[in-house]
Amino acid sequence: MNKLSDINKDFAQWYQDILAQAELVDQSPVKGCFVLRPYSYAIWENIQKVLDKKIKETGTQNAYFPLFIPESFLKKEAKHVEGFSPELAVVTHAGGKELEEPLVVRPTSETIIYYMFSKWIKSWRDLPLKINQWANVVRWEMRTRAFLRTTEFLWQEGHTAHATHQEAVEFSMRMLNVYKEFAENYLAIPAIAGIKSDNERFAGAERTLTIEGLMQDGKALQLCTSHVLAHSFSKSFDIEFQDKDGNLSSPYCTSWGATTRLIGALIMTHGDQNGLIIPPKIASIQVIIVPIYKEEKDKNLVLNKAEEIKNLLLNNGVLAQVDSDDQLTPGAKFFKWELRGVPVRLELGPKDIENSQVVLVNRAESDKTKKKQFVSIENVDKQVNILLENIQKTLFEKAKKRLHDNWHHAQSLQEITQKLEEHNGLYQTGWCGSSECEAKLKDYKASIRCLLESKEHKTCFSCGELATKDVLIAKAY
Amino acid sequence: MNKLSDINKDFAQWYQDILAQAELVDQSPVKGCFVLRPYSYAIWENIQKVLDKKIKETGTQNAYFPLFIPESFLKKEAKHVEGFSPELAVVTHAGGKELEEPLVVRPTSETIIYYMFSKWIKSWRDLPLKINQWANVVRWEMRTRAFLRTTEFLWQEGHTAHATHQEAVEFSMRMLNVYKEFAENYLAIPAIAGIKSDNERFAGAERTLTIEGLMQDGKALQLCTSHVLAHSFSKSFDIEFQDKDGNLSSPYCTSWGATTRLIGALIMTHGDQNGLIIPPKIASIQVIIVPIYKEEKDKNLVLNKAEEIKNLLLNNGVLAQVDSDDQLTPGAKFFKWELRGVPVRLELGPKDIENSQVVLVNRAESDKTKKKQFVSIENVDKQVNILLENIQKTLFEKAKKRLHDNWHHAQSLQEITQKLEEHNGLYQTGWCGSSECEAKLKDYKASIRCLLESKEHKTCFSCGELATKDVLIAKAY
Repeated sequence: MNKLSDINKDFAQWYQDILAQAELVDQSPVKGCFVLRPYSYAIWENIQKVLDKKIKETGTQNAYFPLFIPESFLKKEAKHVEGFSPELAVVTHAGGKELEEPLVVRPTSETIIYYMFSKWIKSWRDLPLKINQWANVVRWEMRTRAFLRTTEFLWQEGHTAHATHQEAVEFSMRMLNVYKEFAENYLAIPAIAGIKSDNERFAGAERTLTIEGLMQDGKALQLCTSHVLAHSFSKSFDIEFQDKDGNLSSPYCTSWGATTRLIGALIMTHGDQNGLIIPPKIASIQVIIVPIYKEEKDKNLVLNKAEEIKNLLLNNGVLAQVDSDDQLTPGAKFFKWELRGVPVRLELGPKDIENSQVVLVNRAESDKTKKKQFVSIENVDKQVNILLENIQKTLFEKAKKRLHDNWHHAQSLQEITQKLEEHNGLYQTGWCGSSECEAKLKDYKASIRCLLESKEHKTCFSCGELATKDVLIAKAY
Repeated sequence: MNKLSDINKDFAQWYQDILAQAELVDQSPVKGCFVLRPYSYAIWENIQKVLDKKIKETGTQNAYFPLFIPESFLKKEAKHVEGFSPELAVVTHAGGKELEEPLVVRPTSETIIYYMFSKWIKSWRDLPLKINQWANVVRWEMRTRAFLRTTEFLWQEGHTAHATHQEAVEFSMRMLNVYKEFAENYLAIPAIAGIKSDNERFAGAERTLTIEGLMQDGKALQLCTSHVLAHSFSKSFDIEFQDKDGNLSSPYCTSWGATTRLIGALIMTHGDQNGLIIPPKIASIQVIIVPIYKEEKDKNLVLNKAEEIKNLLLNNGVLAQVDSDDQLTPGAKFFKWELRGVPVRLELGPKDIENSQVVLVNRAESDKTKKKQFVSIENVDKQVNILLENIQKTLFEKAKKRLHDNWHHAQSLQEITQKLEEHNGLYQTGWCGSSECEAKLKDYKASIRCLLESKEHKTCFSCGELATKDVLIAKAY
């Protein structure tokens, strides 16, 4: 088996190595499109399960809209088409003929969904209308990296229409909060919530809210976004409703999405030199049971006990599996499941059975003296649950500490760029709000990740004029 | 509100009326692509939930493969490209440029999945490999009808590779059986299992197994198929494994799929003049609670009790909802939920509360004297469960009787076509096995739905020569 590249020296290669060696994705014959192999798809299924429930709790219903969008639809919202047209994949031929109007493969579905909304919304009674879809989307990207930026990706996109602007703003914030809580409580990724600068805003939105995460190499990653679209699409697609006074009004819309990128965030937040570490609450295998025996006579005894413990754990809601592969040594299995980031390894041999105990190994603990513990078979379900909770908490605390340690303050462009050259990280500073000042960051491959609530800096990092906002600057994926 | 067209006089229009009035689908701006609205998408989610579990129980893992397939891949399997090329949608431009090689939007994923299999399968230890994906596919259809035949549709497609031919054949049969049991036990649709004739076989398969359902207009509908692909794709895509003796062999493959068409089958099997009837085991709302009060003073009392009963039912695993819409009369609500086919309506008024009772109304019962029953509030959860089970059973029995009543025997083409002119239905007859005899059915818009296990007919319906098989002939969707 291969070894992963050094996580501290070449993070990018370490990431590529993990993708291949943990069998998360594979290159496909189509540029920038990746195959999600079963192990990563299972993580996506778990993300979907939790997020879908939380989305439905907001009164949002799932539906499905067509993959293809007439090219003319994209053009109805001027900023939207400007933002997306360089990335479109276009169907020009179908059924053996050239199409009269080319069809765009959805890069996002605002245009087709708000077109449908215009048919469904007639009265204030039809509002709020809250629809979500789980789907694939396509954006023709130049440089792709699995999970983070791919030509095709999987996501959910929510679209809502409200009677008032305030209601739309509030709902947009509510959804950002759903994402933030999900990122923190399930993925164990501390999320910084803020507003995007005009320049980084979604094409067609009045305001884009974001949550940003900090990866181990000190770069930021946009995790999820939530947009106040306000009137842009409702006006372009003639959505009108009769309000309670009988007047015609345009509803205020929002859209919000989470993608398979979250899997990339997971890898880059928690992984270590031995491979992935998957937070227990999102892991498809929480406990891998490795039976250990040298002599054939012990095989049945150990395997039977392993199955018994697996069933006990499954009955207690723990996702346990036995690795009974005859072709691998126990050592190779340890390596394999460490690489794949299964939070807990349970080792079991004839001696352990004799002593009514098993060994629990904590994937998230690097200190070798604390990594292993013996627990009695009698208490195994309880102890496993304690350990899983503990790992979930530890991963979050560790990431939170990293975020804290890498959150710096700086006064000037020079200071920021100098520090960024030494080490990546997040730089809080003041900003006057002008695009010119923001644009200066481009040369250093940095950007404003978001505007912050707190206001500690008085002058703009670039022009030195009065700052209107504090912003967070970083290099980002 | 509109009324549905007469189910006996114009079944096709009745179907269209239901689609619109029950808010199942809506036309999209793209020809042949339909929007699945929340009420039908919720049925699909339930189908997915059950089927996904059954698929995983066979040891199959979910994964995700790219939407786009290089055009050259389709051409690698001669029969496959012949079958699918008239239906392809093709991306020729992306990212503002013409592509060097056009990309086909997947009509099915054999070519890209078996290409990936060729990278993953090296040894007999890698077999069997069993992969499933839930995805959208596109087939450019001339005449479309929502759910039954649409340009884009949702499905699952399973793909497996096995060391031996026998294992592939057995697995293909196992999956057909998964579909048959699902159709019968969940959708309450009796399914006829059989083999497709060479002519109706999947493009690239050695054998296609099918389950067929009988719709209320006497037409057959192919519900699901399972294919023995054998060596076709494994040879075209150079999949080879080292067997236990160290020799290189090609694995034997299968593929199998179920689509959103099952929702159409559901509608056309169980619907009646008042609308849909959704089998309880697949319904997203099993019990709709309609609070009834005339005077404002009773409102709170009734609504509170309705909520209480809803929570009692939810806690007992029954999917219950209260329709507390102020804008509709109880009568309008009855109409609405009958149209949407919710299996049980629970009516509740102040008098009922006084008497500690509710009214349960059985959507599947047409006899007015048997449709309603009073049950005591104390027993409501138990009685609702009994009624739901009863409805599930009744729907299946009714459909089974219809299948039996419409299953005829016939000796000759003349007899079959004469009878088909009088009324649709299934016609069992003998067949010599020749394509010429099969082709004669085309003029009458009939086809061989499947070859049967039983052998009761001695001569071919067309040429009168010795029959090798009994077949089932019908008009079909």
